[in-house]
Amino acid sequence: MSSPRITPRAQDYSRWYQDVIAEADLVDASPVRGCMVIKPHGYAIWEAIRDDLDARFKATGHVNAYFPLFIPQSFLSKEAEHVEGFAKECAVVTHHRLKATPEGVIPDPDARLEEPLVVRPTSETIIWHMYGRWISSWRDLPILINQWANVVRWEMRTRPFLRTAEFLWQEGHTAHASSEEAQEETRRMLDVYRDFSEQILALPVVRGVKSASERFAGAIDTYTIEGMMQNGWALQCGTSHFLGQNFAKAFEVTFQNKEGQLEHVWATSWGVSTRLVGAVIMAHSDDDGLVLPPKVAPIQVVIVPIYKAETRQTVIDYCERIAASLRPGIRVRIDDRENLKPGAKYFEWERKGVPFRLEVGPRDVEAGTAMVKSRLGGDKGSLTVDEGLGAVVQGMLDAFQQALYDRALAARTERTVEVDSYEALKARLESDAAWFLVPWADDAENEAFIKTDCKATIRCFPLEGQEQAQGRTCFYSGRPATHMAIFARAY
Amino acid sequence: MSSPRITPRAQDYSRWYQDVIAEADLVDASPVRGCMVIKPHGYAIWEAIRDDLDARFKATGHVNAYFPLFIPQSFLSKEAEHVEGFAKECAVVTHHRLKATPEGVIPDPDARLEEPLVVRPTSETIIWHMYGRWISSWRDLPILINQWANVVRWEMRTRPFLRTAEFLWQEGHTAHASSEEAQEETRRMLDVYRDFSEQILALPVVRGVKSASERFAGAIDTYTIEGMMQNGWALQCGTSHFLGQNFAKAFEVTFQNKEGQLEHVWATSWGVSTRLVGAVIMAHSDDDGLVLPPKVAPIQVVIVPIYKAETRQTVIDYCERIAASLRPGIRVRIDDRENLKPGAKYFEWERKGVPFRLEVGPRDVEAGTAMVKSRLGGDKGSLTVDEGLGAVVQGMLDAFQQALYDRALAARTERTVEVDSYEALKARLESDAAWFLVPWADDAENEAFIKTDCKATIRCFPLEGQEQAQGRTCFYSGRPATHMAIFARAY
Repeated sequence: MSSPRITPRAQDYSRWYQDVIAEADLVDASPVRGCMVIKPHGYAIWEAIRDDLDARFKATGHVNAYFPLFIPQSFLSKEAEHVEGFAKECAVVTHHRLKATPEGVIPDPDARLEEPLVVRPTSETIIWHMYGRWISSWRDLPILINQWANVVRWEMRTRPFLRTAEFLWQEGHTAHASSEEAQEETRRMLDVYRDFSEQILALPVVRGVKSASERFAGAIDTYTIEGMMQNGWALQCGTSHFLGQNFAKAFEVTFQNKEGQLEHVWATSWGVSTRLVGAVIMAHSDDDGLVLPPKVAPIQVVIVPIYKAETRQTVIDYCERIAASLRPGIRVRIDDRENLKPGAKYFEWERKGVPFRLEVGPRDVEAGTAMVKSRLGGDKGSLTVDEGLGAVVQGMLDAFQQALYDRALAARTERTVEVDSYEALKARLESDAAWFLVPWADDAENEAFIKTDCKATIRCFPLEGQEQAQGRTCFYSGRPATHMAIFARAY
Repeated sequence: MSSPRITPRAQDYSRWYQDVIAEADLVDASPVRGCMVIKPHGYAIWEAIRDDLDARFKATGHVNAYFPLFIPQSFLSKEAEHVEGFAKECAVVTHHRLKATPEGVIPDPDARLEEPLVVRPTSETIIWHMYGRWISSWRDLPILINQWANVVRWEMRTRPFLRTAEFLWQEGHTAHASSEEAQEETRRMLDVYRDFSEQILALPVVRGVKSASERFAGAIDTYTIEGMMQNGWALQCGTSHFLGQNFAKAFEVTFQNKEGQLEHVWATSWGVSTRLVGAVIMAHSDDDGLVLPPKVAPIQVVIVPIYKAETRQTVIDYCERIAASLRPGIRVRIDDRENLKPGAKYFEWERKGVPFRLEVGPRDVEAGTAMVKSRLGGDKGSLTVDEGLGAVVQGMLDAFQQALYDRALAARTERTVEVDSYEALKARLESDAAWFLVPWADDAENEAFIKTDCKATIRCFPLEGQEQAQGRTCFYSGRPATHMAIFARAY
């Protein structure tokens, strides 16, 4: 049953995305330009993402801390490239008081800040200012800190989850005594992100390095994980930066090494954001609405009781017993709302991406069974309600999770193509988006031209398979290839 | 062993508080006026608080969501009393872009916002604007939403955790179809806060109602839980507001009731903040530094191995076995740092408030024992390391938690006094702070005079024992008493 309110993917992918979000009740627009309200069902997906990642960060030795929302304006100028990248579309606080007037409140002209404050677009500057106070010896290193926070980047064109003025994220900021250790950390966190995406989001990703033009402002190297959406576009799902000594130099952070010499500290930073909720939606959902990997589904199993007045209590009691036998390992909800028919409930939970629905009527109570329907379609099945039910349902959830991953991987494999020429790339892009794996001679000007010409960008130089560039010529310039590159349209 | 770097409580309570925080490495000052950096050990306490509260909110039917950081300036003017309370010391965003100049970046004059935005001091206004879009029928009610967020109130005089310009908190915002239901919710959440404070923070609190002068701006009734600090001052630890229909009227939020009539929606809001970390510190710590209730202690047991080079591996292995037998129920850490002597480790973990320390040397390995020392003092004991160790240590943690509660309750009981006259209150306050339980004839002018005269304020009209006011006369005015009130100095 296709929802009349959801535009099919094939017709308009962008509308489809907005419709899926609206029908699943994930966000609402706010009265503040570019800022979204994340509604409970959407926020619960983010909570699942956050909780799993937080445990992974802690398991790799990181601790959480909290740094101020505001950054003194002058800090943004300190790192030469960072200022280019981030001292642009920021929210700037200039006053610290409002004043009541007959026409309403206004910023009090007597309460102008001496130095304006910027709402953090990212926290390298203020964190490295603090690290300068905390680090003096090799004994103070490494510092392995993560922060869960909101950040603001004033965006003109926004899209729920994928690009909003304010968003929620985590930003890891680590400090090390050597370049090697910092580079190891950069790669370790990239792999944490890769494992998380594949195991929890059921999203296969390609790990790679960004070209200089796509690098984080202030980084030596930016590593990325890139996921393919169902329209063949790429979505950057997380980045991990090796910052070298750039921020340590900008904020004069040195340490005495074991040999007693003063050195600048080595840095990394890495982050993922509420954008990952958008990735999940785009990667797995269908024309009937949201499809969620069980590991991030706020509700994994919904039980819908079907009864008449005289069987109501018996059926509900039976549902409670089923739910109790699934908890706490499985997130289950009984939908016993009185004012909705079962069909309307099925429809609602389908659009909200609940992986499995159990339908339970008086005959199921007698037979000790429950009908089960998967969000991925297929016929309804019958489950036996006994002490083995929890394990059976857990197995179904695991298989569901795996099926999403397999499906996404197959789609990506099918849509990752090798082309011999730029003309072939453009021709394919005009008919159907894809990822283009090509030999490439690194050149920022050529890269910029391609971006302007057909909107494809280098998503990354994938970590695996770089040796294939050897002895080949660039698909665009014909010069000797320096890298294997993935070009694609991207969000 | 008293730390030379911690000022004794008796000498200067305020310095003592700052010293305890510094020695436990909980926060650092930031370059942004009034904003603190919450360091990992301090943030971990907040995480424990947050996780426990979040589970309690969910168990009482609430869900989390996220609303924008920014509020249009005009929103703050919509609720008449709210504007008085909150449209004052706010951070005001006036520009959305920075511009590079030879002297550094400045707010771009071409990027002035049409309407300035306020960084949320609290979110009633923007949330009720959104509720207006979500509510139209009794079927949409109740809405039981909580938000974990940062908020900003520009404070001139700040104190770590207790009063900072930016702080972290949760704010519950619920919408109901009747006054009774909203009032029930207000009281339910007050009790959630009371239970949490007593069971998790080991902090006995008095539940009560605020006088009109101390009420939340826009509330009909503000309920509070008040805790006593070791200097006899009160700390407001959490508030729960019955907002009546004030915000529904200001934002025109109505619903069609079951009878088909249009009514304004009834509201509550309730919150606690990182201030609770300050409450824990002030309530339990001593002249040797931080003391933490085990339930919020980031590390509950620290194991310090004592060895020479030849016994090192044996001792460390034994410590690992002990740690493994305590996990995952108990948060345990082995301090095997090479460059510190055991005595320095003892000193550090004492100041950081770890409830129990185990000291383990080669003789313990042979005997199958461990020496244990409580942060609350007393002699060292010896523990048998066998399969029962986890239960024994858990019992010790529970007893430690209870001992803190009992001690805090005894101190409060001793320092809660009844006085016959205002002169007696002032005389006692001059020698030693206390809580004064007095019959009171409600009068805002008298209340204001007392506040100016001796800085004591009405902390609350306690929920229990109001009947004692009957037939008595006000301790201040001699008029017939309307309430029993608690007066105290407060943070």
